[in-house]
Amino acid sequence: MKKKNKKVNAAILIIGNEILSGRTQDKNVAFISEWLNLKCGITVREVRIIPDVEKIIVQNVRHLSKKFNYVFTTGGIGPTHDDITAQSIAKAFNLKYGFNNEAFKILENYYGADEFNDGRKKMAKMPHKAKLIYNPSSAAPGFITKNVVSLPGVPSILNSMIENCKIYLIKGTKILSKTINLYTVESNISKELGFIQSKYKKFVDIGSYPFFRLGKIGVSIVIRAESKKKLNDVFKEIQKLTKRKQIKQLNI
Amino acid sequence: MKKKNKKVNAAILIIGNEILSGRTQDKNVAFISEWLNLKCGITVREVRIIPDVEKIIVQNVRHLSKKFNYVFTTGGIGPTHDDITAQSIAKAFNLKYGFNNEAFKILENYYGADEFNDGRKKMAKMPHKAKLIYNPSSAAPGFITKNVVSLPGVPSILNSMIENCKIYLIKGTKILSKTINLYTVESNISKELGFIQSKYKKFVDIGSYPFFRLGKIGVSIVIRAESKKKLNDVFKEIQKLTKRKQIKQLNI
Repeated sequence: MKKKNKKVNAAILIIGNEILSGRTQDKNVAFISEWLNLKCGITVREVRIIPDVEKIIVQNVRHLSKKFNYVFTTGGIGPTHDDITAQSIAKAFNLKYGFNNEAFKILENYYGADEFNDGRKKMAKMPHKAKLIYNPSSAAPGFITKNVVSLPGVPSILNSMIENCKIYLIKGTKILSKTINLYTVESNISKELGFIQSKYKKFVDIGSYPFFRLGKIGVSIVIRAESKKKLNDVFKEIQKLTKRKQIKQLNI
Repeated sequence: MKKKNKKVNAAILIIGNEILSGRTQDKNVAFISEWLNLKCGITVREVRIIPDVEKIIVQNVRHLSKKFNYVFTTGGIGPTHDDITAQSIAKAFNLKYGFNNEAFKILENYYGADEFNDGRKKMAKMPHKAKLIYNPSSAAPGFITKNVVSLPGVPSILNSMIENCKIYLIKGTKILSKTINLYTVESNISKELGFIQSKYKKFVDIGSYPFFRLGKIGVSIVIRAESKKKLNDVFKEIQKLTKRKQIKQLNI
């Protein structure tokens, strides 16, 4: 049976004034994007960071959910007034927003009837017919509405929930990658790298990223491809170039 | 003379496959956004992270430059084949793309005639009539095209250049902020915080962010406003609420 190459893509929508203002350093983009590629063969094609404003969330959810196979939102599903992701997604898809029975029971069990106050109840409110993403850290579930996956903003909680998204996702072809770290400057190899990239244009993506390590300047060459053979072909060409130019490699 | 409140906004456009794929953790959004608010009174209203694809860069530059007062791009202005920001911005504004004489001289001086190869010369190519942003770290300048400010992706170099952007920017009113760190959970104060937010809806923005520190759970309440008086009014209301609920504060 021939393996079918299937392209599945996604966008990430980071919802939160704290990320936009620079107060909080986002860590979810890198985590979600790597996980999606490694575990599901899904490529993230766009990320947006937007404020906690309903109209803006609605616009972006509508736009991105049409354009990509999946949208992952982070943030805005907690108990406070600035948590408006669930109601905004309901609005984006013209769905009712109300209590999800299963989520309500999960939270009621977790907190106990006495401690289950209005703020906590709010976390059981979702778009109609959303499917739950269980949360092993702090009970309050994420949810999937159509092709939009909603996760919390706190990285440690998000990380603990991500495996529970897997059952809902169609898998694609994983992008393979190899990195070569060279003790040189980009401009010393830019011409030749450009030639190699042109030659393998359709199959391979070559990125070049300067680095600084222990006071030395270097370049990381990242080769990305779906085909292992093409990946190795390009890897060998760059190895040859490196030898020809007598460039030292850094093994990390 | 009465101080005029002027709203100036910006978007950040992060150009780079390495950020989208999760290989590299972005650090520029938080840095640029904080700097813009603190030094220029400019508020970042949207961030996008996109791949190194000309068509996508052109679309995003056109869209964001119309929608916001400024657009800050990072990445894609180096010497290699995947550095296509300058030519894409030229295309977005239907401007010629070619050597900037001043940039050419700066780079020629920096490298010396013998070492000034094609890759390095490429870094002197810009949209026609772009204004330079000097680079005290590694010579290759950033540039401003219309209302689009283009900076490199390497955080240490970007950070060293940011002050040189200032002369080109119209200043707005700085958003002031105060943070209160409470040893409680969000749902314990969500109702009351919601009331306070409603009361000061037009003037103050209250954000609530859970934190974990030394095994303890807490909530950071961030108050943001243009008016110092309103900021302090809300600060006092939250202090009162904290006392009433006997919540301990963490001083950091």
